[in-house]
Amino acid sequence: MLSELLLTDMARLSQQDNMPLHRQLYEAMRRAMLDGKLAAGDRLPSSRELTHDLGLSRNTVVAALNQLSVEGYLVSRVGSGTYVHDNVPRSPQRKASSQAPRHHTDLSRRGIALSSTFCATQLEVQPFTPGIADFSAFPVALWQRLQNKHWRMTYPEMLDYSYCGGHAPLRRAVADYLRVFRSVPLDVDQVIITSGTQQSLELCAQLLADHGDTVWLEDPAYWGAVKAFMATGLRAHPVKVDQHGMAPTPQDERTPPRLIYTTPSHQYPTGAVMSLARRQHILAIARTHNAWVLEDDYDSEFRFSGPPLSSLAGLDQDERVLYMGSFSKVLYPGLKLGYLVVPKRLVGAFKQAHYDLNRPGQMPLQAALAEFIELGHFASALRRARHSYAQRRQCLLEALAPCLGKNAQITGAEQGLHLCVRLPDALDDKALAQRIGTFGLTVRPLSAYCLERQDAKGLVIGYGYAPLAEIERWGPVLSKALLSELKRFQR
Amino acid sequence: MLSELLLTDMARLSQQDNMPLHRQLYEAMRRAMLDGKLAAGDRLPSSRELTHDLGLSRNTVVAALNQLSVEGYLVSRVGSGTYVHDNVPRSPQRKASSQAPRHHTDLSRRGIALSSTFCATQLEVQPFTPGIADFSAFPVALWQRLQNKHWRMTYPEMLDYSYCGGHAPLRRAVADYLRVFRSVPLDVDQVIITSGTQQSLELCAQLLADHGDTVWLEDPAYWGAVKAFMATGLRAHPVKVDQHGMAPTPQDERTPPRLIYTTPSHQYPTGAVMSLARRQHILAIARTHNAWVLEDDYDSEFRFSGPPLSSLAGLDQDERVLYMGSFSKVLYPGLKLGYLVVPKRLVGAFKQAHYDLNRPGQMPLQAALAEFIELGHFASALRRARHSYAQRRQCLLEALAPCLGKNAQITGAEQGLHLCVRLPDALDDKALAQRIGTFGLTVRPLSAYCLERQDAKGLVIGYGYAPLAEIERWGPVLSKALLSELKRFQR
Repeated sequence: MLSELLLTDMARLSQQDNMPLHRQLYEAMRRAMLDGKLAAGDRLPSSRELTHDLGLSRNTVVAALNQLSVEGYLVSRVGSGTYVHDNVPRSPQRKASSQAPRHHTDLSRRGIALSSTFCATQLEVQPFTPGIADFSAFPVALWQRLQNKHWRMTYPEMLDYSYCGGHAPLRRAVADYLRVFRSVPLDVDQVIITSGTQQSLELCAQLLADHGDTVWLEDPAYWGAVKAFMATGLRAHPVKVDQHGMAPTPQDERTPPRLIYTTPSHQYPTGAVMSLARRQHILAIARTHNAWVLEDDYDSEFRFSGPPLSSLAGLDQDERVLYMGSFSKVLYPGLKLGYLVVPKRLVGAFKQAHYDLNRPGQMPLQAALAEFIELGHFASALRRARHSYAQRRQCLLEALAPCLGKNAQITGAEQGLHLCVRLPDALDDKALAQRIGTFGLTVRPLSAYCLERQDAKGLVIGYGYAPLAEIERWGPVLSKALLSELKRFQR
Repeated sequence: MLSELLLTDMARLSQQDNMPLHRQLYEAMRRAMLDGKLAAGDRLPSSRELTHDLGLSRNTVVAALNQLSVEGYLVSRVGSGTYVHDNVPRSPQRKASSQAPRHHTDLSRRGIALSSTFCATQLEVQPFTPGIADFSAFPVALWQRLQNKHWRMTYPEMLDYSYCGGHAPLRRAVADYLRVFRSVPLDVDQVIITSGTQQSLELCAQLLADHGDTVWLEDPAYWGAVKAFMATGLRAHPVKVDQHGMAPTPQDERTPPRLIYTTPSHQYPTGAVMSLARRQHILAIARTHNAWVLEDDYDSEFRFSGPPLSSLAGLDQDERVLYMGSFSKVLYPGLKLGYLVVPKRLVGAFKQAHYDLNRPGQMPLQAALAEFIELGHFASALRRARHSYAQRRQCLLEALAPCLGKNAQITGAEQGLHLCVRLPDALDDKALAQRIGTFGLTVRPLSAYCLERQDAKGLVIGYGYAPLAEIERWGPVLSKALLSELKRFQR
C-alpha cells in the first residue's frame, strides 16, 4: 500500500521538471509524511524491501533515505530499523503545526539531525585519522613566555569582550599573511577574528541566508560544514566533486544557490585541488545567481609541490567571496582562533552581529598569537610542519604503493594532511574501514562523507597526526589490509 | 489605499480568536507584504500617519511596526523612514520563494535583523552602563600563576579540542558549586562547559526546537537571548514581566511554548526576583505543554539581602529545566567560559552536537579555572565583589533618593549589578537616556528592551562597572537630570 502510494506520487512528479528518480522518491516520501500517510513513529520497510517493492535500484532508494535522514525526517535505531521521526509535522503550514498536539519528544527534528553521528567509526584518534594535525611539536614553552608577557602588561580592556572584530595587531598580522601568501587583497578592517571555521560558517549562514535558502555543498563534503548549515536551516544542494574540485552542472543551476561553500585548496575529503578554470566558473555562477561564495581555505598551508593557486578571494572581481581560515592546524586545535575576511560593505553588519551573537573575547590569547606571527614563529612553525608532514606523506605513499592499480588510485596527495585512495564503486568501503579499525587504526570510508552520490568509494587516510615512526610501523599493516580486500574484490 | 486594505484584513482577523489589535495589524501588514501588495523597497507611511489613517492608537501601531522590524520585514533608515525589506519573500511557499528572481541584497532578512542595533545608545561603557561587572579587581597575577602551572604540566591532549563536554575537574567544580549554592541536584556528567550563555542558548534552541517553534520570552527581555533565538529561527512570544517575574496569562497559553526562556534570579532588565509560586506556575505550564524551560541564572551570585530562592532546576520534578550560567561576571568577560546543565537523557546528544557544531577547546584555561575554584579563590573573589557592589549600590540608592516618589520607583535592587527606576508610561525614556548621555553617562531606557508592551518606561542603571568614587561623583549628576525630567513631566 505504501509502495503504491509512493509510485503514484512519483509518476506525477516525473512529469514535472525531469527530476531524477531518487529526488522523486524523496519528494514522494516527504509528502507522505507531511500528509500523515506515513505517521510519526511508523517503521519503514528496509531499503532492500523498498528496492523490491518499488522496482527501483538500491542506490536510488538509499539516496532518498539518506537525504530524509539528514533532514531529520527519519531516524535509525541500531538493530531495529528506520522510523518516521516523532516530531515530523503533520502539515507544512507553520501555524497549524505549532498548534497541533505534540508528542513529547526530547529533541527537535533539527536536534536529532544535529546530534546524530556521521560516520561508522567514532571519533577515535589513532594513526591515520584524517583531519588532525600533530600538535605535539607545538613550542609550548615559547607560547607560555609570550602569553606571560601579555598577561603582565594586561590592562583591563584586554579582559573585556572584543568589540571591534578582534585585537587589532592580530587582525593586522592576519591581513599581512593573507596578502603575501594567499594573494587576498584586503584591508585590515575586513578581518574578523572568530573562534574558528565553525563560527565563521555559522555567522555567514545567519547573516547572508534565510531559513530554507539553498546552499551548494561539495559532494562528498566536510561534515562540520554540513552541520553548520543544518543548524542554520539552509537547504543543502550537493554538487559533485571531480578531479578539479566542485563541478556544478547546468542541472545544478536549476537549484540556484544563495551560498556556495567550497574548499578549493584541498577539497575535503577527496583532496582535489580546484583548477583555475573551475575557480573562474564558480565565480561566474555566483555572479549569475547573485550568490555569495564561502571559501574555506582549508589546508592551504601545507602544499608540497608547485606554486599555490590563488584563492577565490584573490580572483574575485565583485566582492562576493567570504574567505575563512583557522590557526588550529599550524598551532593547536584547542586554541579556538580563526579568521573571516568579509567584503567591505559587510564589515559593519558582521562585526555588530558577531558581537551580539557570540560576544567574542580571549584578547590576551589574541595578543600572544599576534606576536607569535610578527616575530616569525608562525612562519618557522609552518616550515617545520611542512617538512615533517612531507616525510610522513612520502612514507605513507611508499607503504601504499603495492596496492595501487586500476582498482585503487591515490588522489589529493599534493597538499594537506590527508590523501584519498579511490576504490571501485561496488566495494563496501565502510566495512573495509571497520576491518582496518580492528588493528587499532582509524581511516574513514569516503562514502561516509557523501550527501547524495553513490559513486564515491575509497579510504580517507590522514598522515598529520601520527609521527613518522608510527607511520613506518603501521603503514604496511594498512597496506596489507587494503591489498587483501582488493584481492577478495577481484575474485 | 493601503489603510483600506489593512482595515479590511483586520476586520476579518478580528472575527477569529479575539486577537489583540496590534496583532491584527501585524498580521495584516505581514500578509500585504507576502502577497506583494506592499512591495520590497516600498516606503511605509510614518507611524503618525498610520495612526491617523487607521484610527488606531499610536501604541498599537508602534507595537506592530516593532514586531515586523524585529522579524526583519521592515528596515528603518535613519532620517529617511521605514521600508519593506528588499528580501521579503513574495509568497509563503518556500519552493516558490527560493526560485523567484531575487534582488541583489547584501544581507538576508535574518541578517538585517541580527545586525541591527537594539538600543538608542550604543555600546559605550561609561559609569552606570548596566550588565557589566568591574573586572579591574581581577587577580591577574594569581590567575597567571595558575595558568603557568597548567601550561608547564600540559600534555598534548590539553591542546586538543574538548570531546566530552569539557575538562573533567572544571565540570566537577561547577557541579559542586551548583549543588551547594544553587540547590541544583545534578551529576557531574550533566555539566557541559560552553563558551558562555550565548552558546548555551543557541545550543538549546538548535537541539530542542525547530524553525518556527515558539519560544516564550520575558517582556522586557535580555537582548542577547532575543538575538540567539532570532538566529535559530524561533518565533518569539513575549510574556509580560510583573514584580514577581515572568507572568504568563491564559491568553499567553493560547500560543503554547516549545521553550520558555527566563531569568528568575534577577530578571533582566526589570530586576524582578521570581516568587516561589511563580516558579511553580512556570514549571506547571512547561508540564502542560511539554515545553523545556531554559533557566538563565543571571546575577544569582550577587544577592544582598535574604536567602536565595532555589533555582527552577532545583524545583523541577520531571527533568524539563536546562540551567545555564557563566563566569564572566565574577572573573572577566573575555574569559568566555560558561556552563550548561542538561537533563540526563539529553547528555549524549548535547555533547555530540556541541562537539560537531562548536569544536570546544581552551583546556588549559579550563584547568586553571578549575583550580581557581577548588582552591577557594572563586569564593573569595565572589565575597569581595559582593561587598564592593553592595557599597556601590548603597551609594547609588542614596543619590537617587531625592527623585523617588509616585512617579519614580526603584525595582530590582536586592540583587545583581543593576537596578531599574520605573517611570510613568507617558514619559519618553529614550530621550531621557539620551539627555543623560550628554553628561558622559550611559543608562538604558527600559522601553528599549520591550518586545511588544508599551507600558514599561524607566531607566536601567548599572552599578557594577564604575568604582565607588565614580558613583559618588556621578550619582548626583544622574539624579539631578532625572529630577528635572520628572519636574518637566509633572508640569
